Amino acid sequence: MQTNIRLTLQYDGTDFNGWQLQLGRPETRTVQGVVEKAIEEIVGGSVRLMGSGRTDAGVHAKGQVANFHTNNPIPVDRWVFALNCLLPPDVVVTNAEEVPTDFHAQYSAVGKTYYYYIWNNICQNTFLRNYSHHVRRKLRLSAMEEAASYLKGTHNFRSYCSSGSSVKNFVRTIKAIDFETREQILIFQITADGFLYKMVRTIVGTLLEIGMGKYPPEWIKEVLSARSREAAGPTAPAHGLFLQEVFYG
Amino acid sequence: MQTNIRLTLQYDGTDFNGWQLQLGRPETRTVQGVVEKAIEEIVGGSVRLMGSGRTDAGVHAKGQVANFHTNNPIPVDRWVFALNCLLPPDVVVTNAEEVPTDFHAQYSAVGKTYYYYIWNNICQNTFLRNYSHHVRRKLRLSAMEEAASYLKGTHNFRSYCSSGSSVKNFVRTIKAIDFETREQILIFQITADGFLYKMVRTIVGTLLEIGMGKYPPEWIKEVLSARSREAAGPTAPAHGLFLQEVFYG
Repeated sequence: MQTNIRLTLQYDGTDFNGWQLQLGRPETRTVQGVVEKAIEEIVGGSVRLMGSGRTDAGVHAKGQVANFHTNNPIPVDRWVFALNCLLPPDVVVTNAEEVPTDFHAQYSAVGKTYYYYIWNNICQNTFLRNYSHHVRRKLRLSAMEEAASYLKGTHNFRSYCSSGSSVKNFVRTIKAIDFETREQILIFQITADGFLYKMVRTIVGTLLEIGMGKYPPEWIKEVLSARSREAAGPTAPAHGLFLQEVFYG
Repeated sequence: MQTNIRLTLQYDGTDFNGWQLQLGRPETRTVQGVVEKAIEEIVGGSVRLMGSGRTDAGVHAKGQVANFHTNNPIPVDRWVFALNCLLPPDVVVTNAEEVPTDFHAQYSAVGKTYYYYIWNNICQNTFLRNYSHHVRRKLRLSAMEEAASYLKGTHNFRSYCSSGSSVKNFVRTIKAIDFETREQILIFQITADGFLYKMVRTIVGTLLEIGMGKYPPEWIKEVLSARSREAAGPTAPAHGLFLQEVFYG
């Protein structure tokens, strides 16, 4: 009797070459590769782990979701402990549950939340050096908040999509977009029904141009209507980005 | 004209062999050694950096204080930038100021605050793995709080001092001792006029025995009156400890 197991994963992306297994390059350390190997050690056979989506090299996750099918009779509540015993310290399984056979971590997802951490201070914060983007110049938060609000809703986000993606449909719906300050760390929080390739990092890079006073908040609307990646700001660095949560119906 | 410069330092203790320079072992990476070398590169001569006290291997600091004397005419407000350009990413100078000639980071200190971070959860938190002590068993916080309150005030803390220290006077005054929970992290906070060798980690190790239900809160008083290190609990691991602040008159 095959069961479908859904895992919730947390990982520190610093020493990973992203989520996705790189076929033909088994020496490349990826989260998918490391977790698949741990599952395979337990079930004693080959397993395919499906993630909700890939995260790039250096990107972190607090709530990545993935699933796999197995005939192994191990009770579902044992998976967390069993996997964490085998996994390296930079990946942790925080939950495991049995889900219907047709559940697919990527195709069943109806939304995601990403956080992007910004350390806005003249001095670096050594404890955040791998977990936030350090911006020395004082940011105008209110301008960034105003600009972010213009992105809310349904738009064609082609300008915020890096090349290297094969998607044809660039329309996405941003359900929530906000900044929060927690212990002096500026946290950009964005929830959408889906994200294009490097979309969050391009939005953050564009918002930072506005925060540094290079453009007014309304510029973000011009970028949006240009429908060209060249119109937007630079891609913000990977190590400030966290996949926070994946939503299912 | 010699000036006395006081630095405030932040460091990630993970890859350091503690604060103190190990004479005769120049290959050992210490915070004092790394910062002295950066100062020496700027002034072009030998410098002795005095810290408020040593921190052990693996212990972190958010507000370590140190001072040094120099004839170099560089304006005091340039030291932060100049040093941070030369320092590795795991040490940051957050402040530099000129202080009276007789200021001494260790002897002028009138108190210190340490924080000890505990991640009390069945699952590890990968982002805290180097910055907190992971305790799986559910801790009884109220028992730990009660026990901690018995340590407040002036006592002979010999039971909470590891051997390897040359001090003769074991009397210290704990001015504040408390727990705070922040984003599910349990933070033990302690302020005293001074600390004995491994005193905070021994107090935490003893409080954890109480939190795990091995002893009642009152046991901490028995440990105190025993005046013997054997009476106390184990030394909690170094990587949960942060030197938070040093106070001067």
